[in-house]
Amino acid sequence: MNAKANEQLIEFYERNRNRARLLISCPDQPGIVAAVSQFLFNEGANIIQSDQYSTDPEGGRFFMRVAFEIPGLETREKALCRAFEPVAARFAMDWRISFAYRIKRMAIFVSKQEHCLLELLWQLQSGDLVAEVPLVISNHEDHRELVESFGIPFYHIPVSKETKRAAEAEQLELLADNVDLIVLARYMQVLSPEFVAHYPNRIINIHHSFLPAFVGSKPYERAYERGVKLIGATSHYVTNELDAGPIIEQDVSRVNHRHNVQDLKRIGRHIERVVLARAVKWHLEDRIIPYNNKTVVFV
Amino acid sequence: MNAKANEQLIEFYERNRNRARLLISCPDQPGIVAAVSQFLFNEGANIIQSDQYSTDPEGGRFFMRVAFEIPGLETREKALCRAFEPVAARFAMDWRISFAYRIKRMAIFVSKQEHCLLELLWQLQSGDLVAEVPLVISNHEDHRELVESFGIPFYHIPVSKETKRAAEAEQLELLADNVDLIVLARYMQVLSPEFVAHYPNRIINIHHSFLPAFVGSKPYERAYERGVKLIGATSHYVTNELDAGPIIEQDVSRVNHRHNVQDLKRIGRHIERVVLARAVKWHLEDRIIPYNNKTVVFV
Amino acid sequence: MNAKANEQLIEFYERNRNRARLLISCPDQPGIVAAVSQFLFNEGANIIQSDQYSTDPEGGRFFMRVAFEIPGLETREKALCRAFEPVAARFAMDWRISFAYRIKRMAIFVSKQEHCLLELLWQLQSGDLVAEVPLVISNHEDHRELVESFGIPFYHIPVSKETKRAAEAEQLELLADNVDLIVLARYMQVLSPEFVAHYPNRIINIHHSFLPAFVGSKPYERAYERGVKLIGATSHYVTNELDAGPIIEQDVSRVNHRHNVQDLKRIGRHIERVVLARAVKWHLEDRIIPYNNKTVVFV
Amino acid sequence: MNAKANEQLIEFYERNRNRARLLISCPDQPGIVAAVSQFLFNEGANIIQSDQYSTDPEGGRFFMRVAFEIPGLETREKALCRAFEPVAARFAMDWRISFAYRIKRMAIFVSKQEHCLLELLWQLQSGDLVAEVPLVISNHEDHRELVESFGIPFYHIPVSKETKRAAEAEQLELLADNVDLIVLARYMQVLSPEFVAHYPNRIINIHHSFLPAFVGSKPYERAYERGVKLIGATSHYVTNELDAGPIIEQDVSRVNHRHNVQDLKRIGRHIERVVLARAVKWHLEDRIIPYNNKTVVFV
Repeated sequence: MNAKANEQLIEFYERNRNRARLLISCPDQPGIVAAVSQFLFNEGANIIQSDQYSTDPEGGRFFMRVAFEIPGLETREKALCRAFEPVAARFAMDWRISFAYRIKRMAIFVSKQEHCLLELLWQLQSGDLVAEVPLVISNHEDHRELVESFGIPFYHIPVSKETKRAAEAEQLELLADNVDLIVLARYMQVLSPEFVAHYPNRIINIHHSFLPAFVGSKPYERAYERGVKLIGATSHYVTNELDAGPIIEQDVSRVNHRHNVQDLKRIGRHIERVVLARAVKWHLEDRIIPYNNKTVVFV
Repeated sequence: MNAKANEQLIEFYERNRNRARLLISCPDQPGIVAAVSQFLFNEGANIIQSDQYSTDPEGGRFFMRVAFEIPGLETREKALCRAFEPVAARFAMDWRISFAYRIKRMAIFVSKQEHCLLELLWQLQSGDLVAEVPLVISNHEDHRELVESFGIPFYHIPVSKETKRAAEAEQLELLADNVDLIVLARYMQVLSPEFVAHYPNRIINIHHSFLPAFVGSKPYERAYERGVKLIGATSHYVTNELDAGPIIEQDVSRVNHRHNVQDLKRIGRHIERVVLARAVKWHLEDRIIPYNNKTVVFV
Repeated sequence: MNAKANEQLIEFYERNRNRARLLISCPDQPGIVAAVSQFLFNEGANIIQSDQYSTDPEGGRFFMRVAFEIPGLETREKALCRAFEPVAARFAMDWRISFAYRIKRMAIFVSKQEHCLLELLWQLQSGDLVAEVPLVISNHEDHRELVESFGIPFYHIPVSKETKRAAEAEQLELLADNVDLIVLARYMQVLSPEFVAHYPNRIINIHHSFLPAFVGSKPYERAYERGVKLIGATSHYVTNELDAGPIIEQDVSRVNHRHNVQDLKRIGRHIERVVLARAVKWHLEDRIIPYNNKTVVFV
Repeated sequence: MNAKANEQLIEFYERNRNRARLLISCPDQPGIVAAVSQFLFNEGANIIQSDQYSTDPEGGRFFMRVAFEIPGLETREKALCRAFEPVAARFAMDWRISFAYRIKRMAIFVSKQEHCLLELLWQLQSGDLVAEVPLVISNHEDHRELVESFGIPFYHIPVSKETKRAAEAEQLELLADNVDLIVLARYMQVLSPEFVAHYPNRIINIHHSFLPAFVGSKPYERAYERGVKLIGATSHYVTNELDAGPIIEQDVSRVNHRHNVQDLKRIGRHIERVVLARAVKWHLEDRIIPYNNKTVVFV
């Protein structure tokens, strides 16, 4: 990363050094919020933001995200988690505490189109997104100069039908189980189930249509053929079914009969980059809880 | 129609008594606009609005809509059309002149849901839409009182699989080839190809999804299942393929994980009525030229 | 109210008979959520939805809305409030419990324009809004028939500069301190400070501009003059300063050079009715906490 | 400009080498379109797009933009203009022909905030915008490296109250009456009337509010204070009255009580860059006709 980005990271660290987020998913029943908030009070926490949602107060599933601040948190990470274990056990919670000052590591995969990559790099630089980017991987050489100008290592790993298995092995080795998130910023290769299994709900893709319309390839061409009056983009977690993973964010833009396929692509680029950046931001801020092939997003 | 609506019609007639719209579709080539505008100038016309579009200036298809005003137009309708024939022939035009003061006749078909019907009736009354509504046809009794309170005849024609053919025959008889437009305002019966053939590009349906996503029944339920972050509605001309006719207008509204199917339906109702009313308005104002299962809409 | 609206009310009552909302505003400090949720747990409450917001966890103001369900709530209203008093006192809370099954009473004031009135009446009928409307007051006779057709008493109270004081006295007498909300549905008279003082944060107005642009009269004319590319509407609580009360909701619609003042008014009507209806819905569902001439809206 | 941008320019030139746009503003009267289209037909032009607008067909002002293609246009520029003169004289037209292959020269002025500058540079590189950028001028040193990395000369001209006159003189000398457009991409200095007079309707500013709300400084702070529910941005031509020039484009984004001033600025940055880029694109494509302190925008 370059100097400006580094500064952003340091400033972010200082601002967040006592902050964490508790994420919970469990069967709903009375008493959960009381137990959680009593726990946080006992630990001396200041609650900064709290959101919750229940699919049904009777027999449904309960989701919660609490952002809080505890002085001296860095030295008490483990103790805090251990202290929460009995509460979690009592309500059969899936849970985790994410420490906000631990800056997430995000890999970016990209092919030839650069607009989503550029948006991410700029938002990282401006501080709108906060993450460390240890590497960018591409199946083309095109964006090496751009990526390296941001001080980020760039790896060119070509992919063909024959080399796909080897390419993914190389990618996994580079990732080294040491990234929190992989962003497919218009990466035009389908990842194998084996690859996806390494990063469940940690790979975000941008699809250039308003899903579930136009699943698969050439969505702008098909949108043009169908004569739609709005085009869209969808960011989602990658699963083994093509373009069918949990949707994180969608947006659209108005088009009309004057717009040809090139126009749709141009207009679409602006929706894609915004919709992808929002999803990445929410993931980095631990705002997304995937459930049942959908997402609960606390914004 | 009741008194207020009648007043609106009279006022509209006065305001438009010299107005017409020329609609053209033909192979593109140089000289079309020159010929058309020279023709209108020779006829003493004031051009009020003119729009055109070409799929490609070389070898493409050309579309044009000109709204104009000619003093004493009412007495010269036929002469004007005859005078245009040589121009039309020269460029192999599909064309028509629609006289704005000839108020269009619009039938409304409705089932149990009333929001689209209500929106149309209200916009007719306020003058946002201008049409005569000679009848409302429903396969249920529910909305008789409402419709009749607007002074509009209401016909209850139940439809079952067995009676569908007879029901459509009855509908066609009531319509008597004397309506310019049929609006399916949440009419939950599929019309037969025979029926549709009577009114090509003159039946507008509102589908409660962002087509081509969720073609067919229960779109809100399926949108909920898929976890989309926007829901939409689509107005389109009816063809023989279900929900696949030329799209006229679409719009969307943002939803999130908190919204259950009932919420989606409630939010969706507001999009549906707006999207349907816009399409109806554009049809009544001769702003839509269907072509190639798509629409050119001059707004 | 007519039969259909009555049915809606009964159904609503049944669905909400054990439901209430606790609304809190107090200086932020640790322990509030723990205390509130422990209280609710002790009372046997199921939390249905809970939202909170703090202007600043240190030294800021804290706002909370909890929707909950307690079996047999109707017979325990007073006991519940009494039980909460010590909690409220401990944190210096402004608070209230709103019992959801106690259907709110809403008066509507209207002048000549009917679109906002109509939207409210229809949303009341469809169940999108739930309230009892004991009366509609207008300074014109125009909408008597419409209002009475919904089974709602209509009062015509003309207002001139000379009669304003007397007119307001008559209005207050009709309201009899027995409404939860007054909606100014395009009521074109400015209420006196004396009147407003009777219903602080309980009078909702719709202003036909994107406030603070175009405060005061003729906003569409001024928007046209200024050549804006979006027009808007704003719903807000009425205070003594014209169009300067706490904003509840705003929305806009795109316009262009082709639209004259009449077009802006027509397009604006659709924004106005939607923006007003949303504000009314949120007020009826106790989702709005006014503070510091702004609103916290928990949706 | 760097290699990629250069490639875009060459490709653009090739695609547009026979293309031009005729822009007209004149008193409306019958026969204008006939005369213009006959002229273009006689000149062997293919009309690619044509738009027109009249404030009123009787006694109003008429505006027209025709994009057309004439083989060998480059060698006939002067002849074409001369040939049009009699038509223009007949209708008392303000007019110009803009030859699309003559790539416009655009200067960018910027202060410390970089998002608008970045968006322009990026869209220039991707070909979404087509212009030559002979220079970027800033009152701060900050963006030299960025600008020069795009191969664009960067000039640092500090401005204080005392040096303003001298600074503007230096700016004007650098511009050398040889730019078609000056873009104020968050340039936080007010230009003097003398400077503005050099570039009437050729300086585009982005104001970070939904004008006419929050004219002047600190609009996000004031939007926060007022508690608005949407924030916006406005691009406009610069005149001598602050933030009061003809509006070209506006857009808004939804905000709520949770957003503090910093959040509004972050969200606003994304609206600003989009709204500015749209205005610049329309100017470069000769789609804007300013009139009466408003704009006719043919898109």
